[in-house]
Amino acid sequence: MDLRDMLSKCDHTLLRQDSTWDEIKKLCDEGVKYGVASVCIPPSFVKRAAEYLRGRLPVCTVIGFPNGYSTTAVKVAETEDAVANGADEIDMVINVGFVKDRMWDELLGELKAVRAACPGKVMKVIIETCLLTRDEKIELCRIVSESGADYIKTSTGFSTGGATAEDVDLLRRYTDRRLGVKAAGGISGLEDAERYLALGATRLGTSRVVKLAAAQERHGL
Amino acid sequence: MDLRDMLSKCDHTLLRQDSTWDEIKKLCDEGVKYGVASVCIPPSFVKRAAEYLRGRLPVCTVIGFPNGYSTTAVKVAETEDAVANGADEIDMVINVGFVKDRMWDELLGELKAVRAACPGKVMKVIIETCLLTRDEKIELCRIVSESGADYIKTSTGFSTGGATAEDVDLLRRYTDRRLGVKAAGGISGLEDAERYLALGATRLGTSRVVKLAAAQERHGL
Repeated sequence: MDLRDMLSKCDHTLLRQDSTWDEIKKLCDEGVKYGVASVCIPPSFVKRAAEYLRGRLPVCTVIGFPNGYSTTAVKVAETEDAVANGADEIDMVINVGFVKDRMWDELLGELKAVRAACPGKVMKVIIETCLLTRDEKIELCRIVSESGADYIKTSTGFSTGGATAEDVDLLRRYTDRRLGVKAAGGISGLEDAERYLALGATRLGTSRVVKLAAAQERHGL
Repeated sequence: MDLRDMLSKCDHTLLRQDSTWDEIKKLCDEGVKYGVASVCIPPSFVKRAAEYLRGRLPVCTVIGFPNGYSTTAVKVAETEDAVANGADEIDMVINVGFVKDRMWDELLGELKAVRAACPGKVMKVIIETCLLTRDEKIELCRIVSESGADYIKTSTGFSTGGATAEDVDLLRRYTDRRLGVKAAGGISGLEDAERYLALGATRLGTSRVVKLAAAQERHGL
């Protein structure tokens, strides 16, 4: 795949706990320059980034991140706040404890509540694959497909593991075709990226692809 | 120090992303049995734990946890929601990006807003010492002292490091005497616990001390 095509599928991401505005601004500049899908940034930077970007690039942020165990009411409030601040895309984390307790109705209810809080925005649901059994992942593919979300996403990048080829393949097979699949967490380079896209991922959560594009540019490639 | 005294200063803690209700219930039972200060649990379990405990033990939960980069509006909503669900104690995380950007007024404003959202409840402020310089820690001791919070707390346990003796000592020296100091993250056993208490910590965030008490009991000590 062409590097430009690949960049257009990347959520250029910076979610480190101590990220500064200068770093976020640089992320935005790089995102515009390299034509990524969005910048994915902490909620407290959304307003400033949206004002800075003035529509040149979608702003993506995270909800219930990374542990996913805020209450549904708080995830809804967080989503409304993010949208009011200018977020175009919402990556929310499911409650993994609810999965372990097999509270499927509560999980679906929470996704629908968040969906209702961001009408018209792109909603992605992070299921944190590294903590789940194969059966739990399949059940969640069904629930996320039913919820009205736009994407199912593998990982936060803050737990015990990130995207794997096996999980991207499984999510693509068991999630309704109307939804996209986002692979995130620990994408180490173009080889991973190509592989996940070939397996059916439609978005990548990473800053690595932009870094590689910038490096190629510096070397006149 | 007597083990019973030490237990009375412990926030018996379970904040793993995939914690289940059975584990939280067990934590509550242990907390009551061993006379800890509180149980510290994810927000989505607060209501159920408060109903289960019926006042036998304070319920502590976490706000903006662990990354601290939700907006102030969301931290306030989260605090109100936690209090409505029955939380007695609130451990909130500061915005470390604001520290790096030297936004001291915004930091103090956020703490005061959260303080106003939980009147009469115990409020602890996690500064995430492992990410801070010495000067930043000292500035935060001043801000937390001014905020109306009850405790300054070292760590979330989810970042690059937990409490250290040096940090407990520094926090105790530079924080107003009206506030307590909570050491949390990576407390490995009684030796750490004793050392932190001797240096002026007044709370410990750990499940290790209860585990050791239970082990002693099993061995008839």
